[in-house]
Amino acid sequence: MPIRFREDYADIKAFLGFEVTKILFSQKSPFQKIDILETDTFGRVLLIDNLIMFTEKDEFVYHEMIAHVPLFVHPEPQNILIIGGGDGGTIRECTKHPEVQNIDLVEIDRLVTQACLKYTPKLSEKILNEKVTCYFEDAVEFVKQSNQQYDVIIIDSTDPINVGEGLFTKEFYQNCNKLLTSDGILVAQSESPIWFPKLIKGIADKLNSVFPKVYFYQANIPTYPSGYWSFAFASKKYHPVTDFREKRYQQLNLKLKYYNESLHSSTFNLPTFFSELINEA
Amino acid sequence: MPIRFREDYADIKAFLGFEVTKILFSQKSPFQKIDILETDTFGRVLLIDNLIMFTEKDEFVYHEMIAHVPLFVHPEPQNILIIGGGDGGTIRECTKHPEVQNIDLVEIDRLVTQACLKYTPKLSEKILNEKVTCYFEDAVEFVKQSNQQYDVIIIDSTDPINVGEGLFTKEFYQNCNKLLTSDGILVAQSESPIWFPKLIKGIADKLNSVFPKVYFYQANIPTYPSGYWSFAFASKKYHPVTDFREKRYQQLNLKLKYYNESLHSSTFNLPTFFSELINEA
Repeated sequence: MPIRFREDYADIKAFLGFEVTKILFSQKSPFQKIDILETDTFGRVLLIDNLIMFTEKDEFVYHEMIAHVPLFVHPEPQNILIIGGGDGGTIRECTKHPEVQNIDLVEIDRLVTQACLKYTPKLSEKILNEKVTCYFEDAVEFVKQSNQQYDVIIIDSTDPINVGEGLFTKEFYQNCNKLLTSDGILVAQSESPIWFPKLIKGIADKLNSVFPKVYFYQANIPTYPSGYWSFAFASKKYHPVTDFREKRYQQLNLKLKYYNESLHSSTFNLPTFFSELINEA
Repeated sequence: MPIRFREDYADIKAFLGFEVTKILFSQKSPFQKIDILETDTFGRVLLIDNLIMFTEKDEFVYHEMIAHVPLFVHPEPQNILIIGGGDGGTIRECTKHPEVQNIDLVEIDRLVTQACLKYTPKLSEKILNEKVTCYFEDAVEFVKQSNQQYDVIIIDSTDPINVGEGLFTKEFYQNCNKLLTSDGILVAQSESPIWFPKLIKGIADKLNSVFPKVYFYQANIPTYPSGYWSFAFASKKYHPVTDFREKRYQQLNLKLKYYNESLHSSTFNLPTFFSELINEA
């Protein structure tokens, strides 16, 4: 009998699962339950409170899309703040940009980072890069207290439940806005437009009340609910498509697996139901 | 205890499932097992041999994308051949184009159509439209014997197992090619690029050996494996993007939920891993 993991999507009365060959790590931190599973077909998998955070098979989609879209719009992204993202995948992508001088990671749960460094080192090892400073504390407090200035803020959060909840409020977005330079960009993972439309509508409305420019983009992440994921791009100055830094993209010549030049623009072309959802009064 | 349906993705050792409130129909035809389920969150669901063919919640994505992409490229799509598609969803979308004069549907299994007409009439009722002729026979034989000429052929098939297998061969594509006018277009559902890369590579290679122009496009269909689906666009003359009939799209002013003008082009911008896969030698 194979071991099976199943993630339940309560709102939609559905579930996704896969066979597990070994449980490599399973521990409760003061904040949440953390598991790392071994699988034949998805590689290693990080769960937080029984929700899939990444699988080695498809994490490249999420991490490339959350990082390179803002970093190829900002003309000189030197200072980056990553909220959550304790697995290091977003850091890995950010460090591919030579313009990046400093990355602050604010992850509430040190145990996530420790576990990932041990069990998924290839994904996570850039956490140890000299440009990175880790703050293992509550990001809600961090953005309230900090007086740093960042070019790009990436909200690489869990879902808006438990520890993730405070990262989806208007107040949180206002505090992020305050930490952004006058041409700063914020990007946030913003859930599934087809299965969780109310969530994404809430994110859209709050961001629109804080930022002058808000756009959504999308990616195919098979192991997230519905396989169809969205990201919010909120900006003080730059347009995500017309301000795309084509030349820098071409010069850097990164070997990526999902993100590319033509996808940078087309990812902002949304299906009609999604545009209508975020533009509803 | 809720009833649960689970579709197993053997190749990837994974599964997707949902709660079922009622089994409305369950019967074995000479070809396959057909079930129609009632659910709270996905509406009614058609299964063939325990694989999800459509759910009322997300079928609009598949049917809009398989029909409108070729029909808004061909300048005057009068004669349409649909292979499979016995549920009538693709017919429904094709009948929205006033240019369409005649739709031939070749569905091997009459029971699929009968069950859908009874249990999902809104999706299926255009099967009864006067422009539609249904041939309940094997499409492999149909395309071999027929001497009709079509402007657009849509392969709305099941997976390449059992009755679907013959619809994925080079010989089948050659026979389709023979039935197309000199500016004809063939579109085929072509499986998940991220979970079934060998399948799609096989389709690409065979189509490339038969048609001068072959392109792939994509859509998010949460209840298909990986939630990320692809379609092949094979053409004798027209390019799917540069020959897009923008004016006709605007004049028709269809009320669609997924497909739109900007998506028509951007859906052909593929993630890097997908382009590399189909272009591999």
